[in-house]
Amino acid sequence: MPRQTQIGVMSHEELVSEHETQTANYAQLRTEKLTLDLTRGKPSPEQLDLSAELLSLPGAGDYRDGTGTDCRNYGGQHGLPELRAIFGELLGIPVENLIAGNNASLQLMHDVIAYAMLYGTNDSERRWAAEPAIKWLCPSPGYDRHFAITEALGFEMIPIPMSDDGPDTAAIATLLAADPQIKGLWAVPNYANPSGAVYSEEVVRELVSMPAAAPDFRLFWDNAYAVHPLTDTAAPVFDVLGLAAAAGNPNRPIVFASTSKITFAGSGVSFLGASTANLDWYLSHAAKSSIGPDKINQLRHLRFFGDADGVRAHMQKHREILEPKFALVLRILEDRLGASKVASWTEPKGGYFISLDVLDGTAARVIALAKDAGIALTAAGSAFPYRNDPDDKNIRIAPSFPKLPELEKAMDGLATCVLLAATEKTLGK
Amino acid sequence: MPRQTQIGVMSHEELVSEHETQTANYAQLRTEKLTLDLTRGKPSPEQLDLSAELLSLPGAGDYRDGTGTDCRNYGGQHGLPELRAIFGELLGIPVENLIAGNNASLQLMHDVIAYAMLYGTNDSERRWAAEPAIKWLCPSPGYDRHFAITEALGFEMIPIPMSDDGPDTAAIATLLAADPQIKGLWAVPNYANPSGAVYSEEVVRELVSMPAAAPDFRLFWDNAYAVHPLTDTAAPVFDVLGLAAAAGNPNRPIVFASTSKITFAGSGVSFLGASTANLDWYLSHAAKSSIGPDKINQLRHLRFFGDADGVRAHMQKHREILEPKFALVLRILEDRLGASKVASWTEPKGGYFISLDVLDGTAARVIALAKDAGIALTAAGSAFPYRNDPDDKNIRIAPSFPKLPELEKAMDGLATCVLLAATEKTLGK
Repeated sequence: MPRQTQIGVMSHEELVSEHETQTANYAQLRTEKLTLDLTRGKPSPEQLDLSAELLSLPGAGDYRDGTGTDCRNYGGQHGLPELRAIFGELLGIPVENLIAGNNASLQLMHDVIAYAMLYGTNDSERRWAAEPAIKWLCPSPGYDRHFAITEALGFEMIPIPMSDDGPDTAAIATLLAADPQIKGLWAVPNYANPSGAVYSEEVVRELVSMPAAAPDFRLFWDNAYAVHPLTDTAAPVFDVLGLAAAAGNPNRPIVFASTSKITFAGSGVSFLGASTANLDWYLSHAAKSSIGPDKINQLRHLRFFGDADGVRAHMQKHREILEPKFALVLRILEDRLGASKVASWTEPKGGYFISLDVLDGTAARVIALAKDAGIALTAAGSAFPYRNDPDDKNIRIAPSFPKLPELEKAMDGLATCVLLAATEKTLGK
Repeated sequence: MPRQTQIGVMSHEELVSEHETQTANYAQLRTEKLTLDLTRGKPSPEQLDLSAELLSLPGAGDYRDGTGTDCRNYGGQHGLPELRAIFGELLGIPVENLIAGNNASLQLMHDVIAYAMLYGTNDSERRWAAEPAIKWLCPSPGYDRHFAITEALGFEMIPIPMSDDGPDTAAIATLLAADPQIKGLWAVPNYANPSGAVYSEEVVRELVSMPAAAPDFRLFWDNAYAVHPLTDTAAPVFDVLGLAAAAGNPNRPIVFASTSKITFAGSGVSFLGASTANLDWYLSHAAKSSIGPDKINQLRHLRFFGDADGVRAHMQKHREILEPKFALVLRILEDRLGASKVASWTEPKGGYFISLDVLDGTAARVIALAKDAGIALTAAGSAFPYRNDPDDKNIRIAPSFPKLPELEKAMDGLATCVLLAATEKTLGK
């Protein structure tokens, strides 16, 4: 496939020719009757195989943790201390400020918001359900499942521009200081979904210290990719709880994490880290709805990892599987779209996604073209509140699940769709 | 220990003598410095050992269910069809109307109520949080963790008298027809906590068919002990969903169950059974808070049980451990309290509890005496809404956890406390 030239500077004739070329490419693509999926950040079977031992752990007769607790029985809202210590080390959170839960950190985020709605937080004047309105800051592009929670609850979601070092803190500071109805912000501080952005220390410090009109404003700090670098130098995990406490806002951040993209996506362990006051509040409500998390699954993970270095070594194996997939995606993007100047994309140093920006006004068209050619992409606008991508340009690419040959086909097909849509648009078709 | 005579017909002298005897018994009891616990319905270690295989299941290389699903990955809100089929058979629920969740059915109950509060049910005119008041029918004595959920949410809990065949349906019918703010009823239909009552078919039919002023009234049908008989003849599990549908109220019951008292109390699988409309409603909200339940744990349980007969055979082993404990408790109650006429108790045919009624106005005193002697009992009034036992007479006995010698000591000590408190009360002390 020859390298493309810059579409924006083509003559009309060149453009028509390019459109014909891409139309032919697309027709060819459709004959292949692909069924490829770039939608979700799912680990591949090869990645899941890395945790095969979990299928027979903790093993015969092994059901007590280091404190002697019979993990089979009821009880223990905090989860196993030894496993919390491991992830406390990795997340930079003291073990007493970190609890371990069931298989989904999304559930923990939902529950924190649900408890705040039903009872108010420990810093709320009233339950959130009794507020005239709840507003939420949504760095965008961001994680669609975050936005789905706040949309379902009828919150007013306010998009915040994202840069490589995090969200626009000046914009946030202005909004936050003025509006007591702003109660939360969705954050993915390390290798953000979908851009791969890493929040800088400066951004973290500003977020925990800037004045907020609402005393119960919370940073929903979803550190889903804390230990998921794709390079030798992992992005630092900042002590957001400590920084917030030092800034006089100890209850502002609530940290979430899980092993969903470390062990088994559906059968991992989730974590919630927060100030003592926040944890007391959370547990007082969580204790009403469960007699405790699945401690045997926590013990299983404890036996599997051993210690924090065990997690790090395990993540290195994930990296060895993921790195070639990310490299392949970036190579195809550069080869097929680099010279055309109709697209730009992120080059993440970790995480699960590449964020592709195509020619303004063509993302939905690209996604529809790809779908008709058997290449599934997340719905247009998914990375924005209300699925509203104001420039209709963003496409999230999830390279983890397909095998390399399938990923190559899918990305090559996607590139054809991007170019076809760009020539259509430029020709005013 | 000699059998007691009837305290109510004693002369003052006899009563003083009896009080002295029990005071001496109690003093002796305190010298034993016991630390015994009759509080919670926890399975004993011997019961947990029955499921030891789960510690190494599903086993190396086993991660696909019968439909080919890779259970390790994300997805599948309904849970594994094969496991749902097994529990559908046991619970009398079609597999398409039963979903399998994580480790706590209490969480499912809480979530259904939380979703109703935040969004309204599929039959609600508005979200429950926007209702002027929510009222809840609470057959009592009942399960303290049920009442804790509805108390936390500020619902007005209305106690309903319980008989051996279920709650007082005439009282319920009168309330339900008149008051649209009554949105729910807590029910444990088989071997109810704590009385062991079994709802009769007549009671079930009345509950699903009686008129309700609220279109979104729900029966929270917690069938926690569906497969937990202590006799050869298990109480029938009525088809509450089918009966409700036939009565024109298909969305009224929501059935809950779990393996918490079948396999590992903290690491089991929960179930929710309901009409298709209810399930669609529930899943539409559950999908916002999780990408699905722990399917590997469901597969683990599927491999362990094999089929419904596997569950039944497994429950027979539980019965062999539990039956002698229940028999011991009943024997001591009869031996120590039978002739005194200051107490009555249930003789459950299944489940986890014996409900002891002591002399009116003495339950709190008995529990305090027992505590000082190192015998922990659930707090006075626990089985009633707001912990308010109107007669101060009910004590819940949970015989499952202690070993037989400990159980014997605890029950003998408890009997002493019952008699001491009764003589104190009768003497006006």
